[in-house]
Amino acid sequence: MATDFNKAIEALKKLNFKNMYRKDFFLTWDHTIEELKSVWNVADALRALREQNISTKVFDSGLGISIFRDNSTRTRFSFASACNLLGLEVQDLDEKKSQIAHGETLRETANMVSFMADVIGIRDDMYIGKGHTYQKDFCDSVEYGYEHGILEQRPYLVNLQCDIDHPTQVMADAAHCIREFGGVENLKGKKIAMTWAYSPSYGKPLSVPQGVVGLFSRLGMEVSLAYPEGYEIMDDVVEVAKKQTSESGGKFSISHDMKEAFKDADIIYPKSWAPFKAMEKRTDLYSKGDQEGIDKLEKELLSQNANHKDWACTEDMMKLTKGGKGLYLHCLPADITGLSCKEGEVDKSVFDRYLDPLYKQASFKPYVIAAMIMLAQFENPVKILEDLKSKKSDRVFER
Amino acid sequence: MATDFNKAIEALKKLNFKNMYRKDFFLTWDHTIEELKSVWNVADALRALREQNISTKVFDSGLGISIFRDNSTRTRFSFASACNLLGLEVQDLDEKKSQIAHGETLRETANMVSFMADVIGIRDDMYIGKGHTYQKDFCDSVEYGYEHGILEQRPYLVNLQCDIDHPTQVMADAAHCIREFGGVENLKGKKIAMTWAYSPSYGKPLSVPQGVVGLFSRLGMEVSLAYPEGYEIMDDVVEVAKKQTSESGGKFSISHDMKEAFKDADIIYPKSWAPFKAMEKRTDLYSKGDQEGIDKLEKELLSQNANHKDWACTEDMMKLTKGGKGLYLHCLPADITGLSCKEGEVDKSVFDRYLDPLYKQASFKPYVIAAMIMLAQFENPVKILEDLKSKKSDRVFER
Amino acid sequence: MATDFNKAIEALKKLNFKNMYRKDFFLTWDHTIEELKSVWNVADALRALREQNISTKVFDSGLGISIFRDNSTRTRFSFASACNLLGLEVQDLDEKKSQIAHGETLRETANMVSFMADVIGIRDDMYIGKGHTYQKDFCDSVEYGYEHGILEQRPYLVNLQCDIDHPTQVMADAAHCIREFGGVENLKGKKIAMTWAYSPSYGKPLSVPQGVVGLFSRLGMEVSLAYPEGYEIMDDVVEVAKKQTSESGGKFSISHDMKEAFKDADIIYPKSWAPFKAMEKRTDLYSKGDQEGIDKLEKELLSQNANHKDWACTEDMMKLTKGGKGLYLHCLPADITGLSCKEGEVDKSVFDRYLDPLYKQASFKPYVIAAMIMLAQFENPVKILEDLKSKKSDRVFER
Repeated sequence: MATDFNKAIEALKKLNFKNMYRKDFFLTWDHTIEELKSVWNVADALRALREQNISTKVFDSGLGISIFRDNSTRTRFSFASACNLLGLEVQDLDEKKSQIAHGETLRETANMVSFMADVIGIRDDMYIGKGHTYQKDFCDSVEYGYEHGILEQRPYLVNLQCDIDHPTQVMADAAHCIREFGGVENLKGKKIAMTWAYSPSYGKPLSVPQGVVGLFSRLGMEVSLAYPEGYEIMDDVVEVAKKQTSESGGKFSISHDMKEAFKDADIIYPKSWAPFKAMEKRTDLYSKGDQEGIDKLEKELLSQNANHKDWACTEDMMKLTKGGKGLYLHCLPADITGLSCKEGEVDKSVFDRYLDPLYKQASFKPYVIAAMIMLAQFENPVKILEDLKSKKSDRVFER
Repeated sequence: MATDFNKAIEALKKLNFKNMYRKDFFLTWDHTIEELKSVWNVADALRALREQNISTKVFDSGLGISIFRDNSTRTRFSFASACNLLGLEVQDLDEKKSQIAHGETLRETANMVSFMADVIGIRDDMYIGKGHTYQKDFCDSVEYGYEHGILEQRPYLVNLQCDIDHPTQVMADAAHCIREFGGVENLKGKKIAMTWAYSPSYGKPLSVPQGVVGLFSRLGMEVSLAYPEGYEIMDDVVEVAKKQTSESGGKFSISHDMKEAFKDADIIYPKSWAPFKAMEKRTDLYSKGDQEGIDKLEKELLSQNANHKDWACTEDMMKLTKGGKGLYLHCLPADITGLSCKEGEVDKSVFDRYLDPLYKQASFKPYVIAAMIMLAQFENPVKILEDLKSKKSDRVFER
Repeated sequence: MATDFNKAIEALKKLNFKNMYRKDFFLTWDHTIEELKSVWNVADALRALREQNISTKVFDSGLGISIFRDNSTRTRFSFASACNLLGLEVQDLDEKKSQIAHGETLRETANMVSFMADVIGIRDDMYIGKGHTYQKDFCDSVEYGYEHGILEQRPYLVNLQCDIDHPTQVMADAAHCIREFGGVENLKGKKIAMTWAYSPSYGKPLSVPQGVVGLFSRLGMEVSLAYPEGYEIMDDVVEVAKKQTSESGGKFSISHDMKEAFKDADIIYPKSWAPFKAMEKRTDLYSKGDQEGIDKLEKELLSQNANHKDWACTEDMMKLTKGGKGLYLHCLPADITGLSCKEGEVDKSVFDRYLDPLYKQASFKPYVIAAMIMLAQFENPVKILEDLKSKKSDRVFER
């Protein structure tokens, strides 16, 4: 299905996104709903141009700096794809190959790598209370450099996942839902169930469930968050979600009943995560270097997880969803019962049935990232996109 | 010596390569001889353009994904050079930095990294029966993605070495021979000796000898494969080579006599490899995790190798070749007696005498890879190449 | 402050740099002072173009090969930035991922990675007597390849740090001083103190102090080198510096008195390094694999360092400099007392006061590297730069 360039541009023209210009992207709830809609529409416009073999290289040179403080495949490739789409070359700051350990400050590193950087992508989701702060500090550092005449341009942040939010993921998730339901307005009144699910591994980040309730609560939806007792997410995010749901005319509920959440849900997002409190504790143990404590905590968490093996997205659970056909979402990779583990988040038959939509869901991420870059870099992205369209320079020569 | 653009284009115009369009490149014997000739001619045309400082960037953006499941220098740089020559940016899928271990399927990974990929280069030569299968599965996965509307474009495979064939290597080897002998037609009736040679290391891949007999048997040559008893290559490839030699009007023989093979040979390719059966056994031991068995097998193989130290490309052996001046080939790096090891595949004096041709042999690889990419991507590469030539955009500004 | 394109071009037109064309950059003292001035002016011209959003991509494709035989952040990013600015793609030769250990010669590796390389950047500063030799050997290898028709183009070296000199660093340092003092002619007669300073780590490279005295002795300055007895640098470099100072109308002195050196200094560069003799000894121990000897030497050196904790750039020391306001230089990262270590090279308050100039100092490095590349690649860089200016192709689309 071809993406509609004109529709995206017309929508963009009606939106106010002027405050995204020269601004970092940390959390979706830092932005107005019009700004988020702008991201989706710029993403669509870029996708449409690429489908029509029209080059979207707006940078003739320049670097996109990436920092992955955890392993990554899909986010790494999404960021690389987005940069490449716009003409930036990715340069990865591999902390193992750097001298950062040699007593260098973050302010120093941030400036040293940014002399020719237009965008910074950071993934730092491991330690509660650290990732977001690291990103903030990085941005303050380059802001300092720019204001003090050290950097000729200010690179803007795309948060590739922190301890609080995973905006490129959930914005892609939402873009997918918008496409599947035929428009963002059609999500109004729909029910989304963000539920915990059992996994045999532990310590999975909270940024996805937090990001989901932090974003979908903007859309006038019924957001149903469900998890076993003890698996609370950050209080602050819950408050944000509550406030936003009421503003957007939706509903927000927290329960400890997966079935209740799945009941008549239009969209379901069953996924494992670690309890916030436990992650706080772990962060503390790591900072103390208390390996014994860490090992003990891991055992406790795995055994706590094992009490909730019934939290799984089975065929029976799927039957509870709207017409038995709720849209299954996952950020991937999933723990698939009988495939990647004995007992996991989702039945293999369910996962297999949703394979195509799951992959399509992921396909939005490079465009969402590219859109975030465009909106931070260009005061008038509508004109830029229209000029790219008229210029009609081939992405692939004479194709 | 300048490469002749017009000659390459004229040759191309007479060849049928239409089935290479939108097709993966796995094994040379999957392709007709006209298709292989097309690769050489497109490679020559690209080389000629670069020599004339004419840009051959046919991609304005897009990724070339590489997966190296073994260490690599020359193939890595050849692939990077080929992608850069055409305008693609290489993004390496380093499995150590990825989440592939986390229960993700190959189908999932393949699609997740390919949203903006135009080419996939995979090297997987370690385990018998695995590399080719891995490549096939990868291609099936992206084909699935393309057909199901997940991928906007289908990336095509360039096999950078598997357990069966090493097509970019042997196509470069052949391109070199074609240049040295003044045309592919001049190889007809010539004798090539693909022989085993002693190396103090073990477990060297079979893909080069298999690739050589699988390719040179297409050219009407006398292909003489020689190895000590017990160093058999894959039966299937022998069958392919036999069939092809008879079809092309050449001869094919297997002997256990290096001198016999070298006798009056126009081209000699002495190189170590591991016995196919032993590699099958090793693959089995690895899959069982039987370290003791693996260690035992290594000892056996090294001691088996040591029985055949007389299989070396010495000055005396060279005298047996046609006029004492057979063209010495090697895929590099070679085990050079008295340089990189005490006793190895080739005398230092022989190796040194053929240094320039050996390096030239290697220089064809980036162009061969680029040609494979072009032929998979463009329905009418003749027009593309001619238009690049007329457009005459500088590779280096005003040089 | 905008960089003045016309001023740089006018200066360039008066300089003789014709011998830099097709030449490697090893050591600053291999070059005439006019050649060094050309580097600064080309760097300024490139910077001015970038500030004006004018693309300086002079390569439409081509590789910049980097080899880092030690960890690196800023030099890695500077090289990547320089290559990107000119249109080259960096391909890193990570020796751990390569087959170099498999008995391959440097001549072979150098040619194998250079088929499409236009520039080679090498950092090899660990072992006395090795780094420069490695770079020479690499360049001899590609020269061989080019002369023998193996390489279609000859990649030229940018020395990213060797055991003797660190030319991209000290050329950036000097560019910074030139900017701060309002012109290279204003450095004449000024005093620069290159002094040792205490660090709790050991074995820091000598290339910076050697590079500094080897370069600033060209500028008619009073070069005051000071270190505790036993911390001698290479004799050869001292001889070079002496000779050059007398030729340039400056002064050169060596003392063991940090205060004497700081007294009335316009510029101060306090930085730790290891004694040359000790590094020679260490290199010898490494080559013998004598770990016990290495550990013993490390202890000796750390304890020797600890005798000189009074060699620190304190507030009191700063008062001795010209008007108490000498320009503080450091190649970064510095050992900052009370920040990165208990006692180090410089007081935190001093370091903090010079933060902006220190970062600006570093900002010259990408441009210096790019200028070195331009001067090796283009016979008439003035015309190239002027044509880029007239062509006025956007770096960022319609910005």
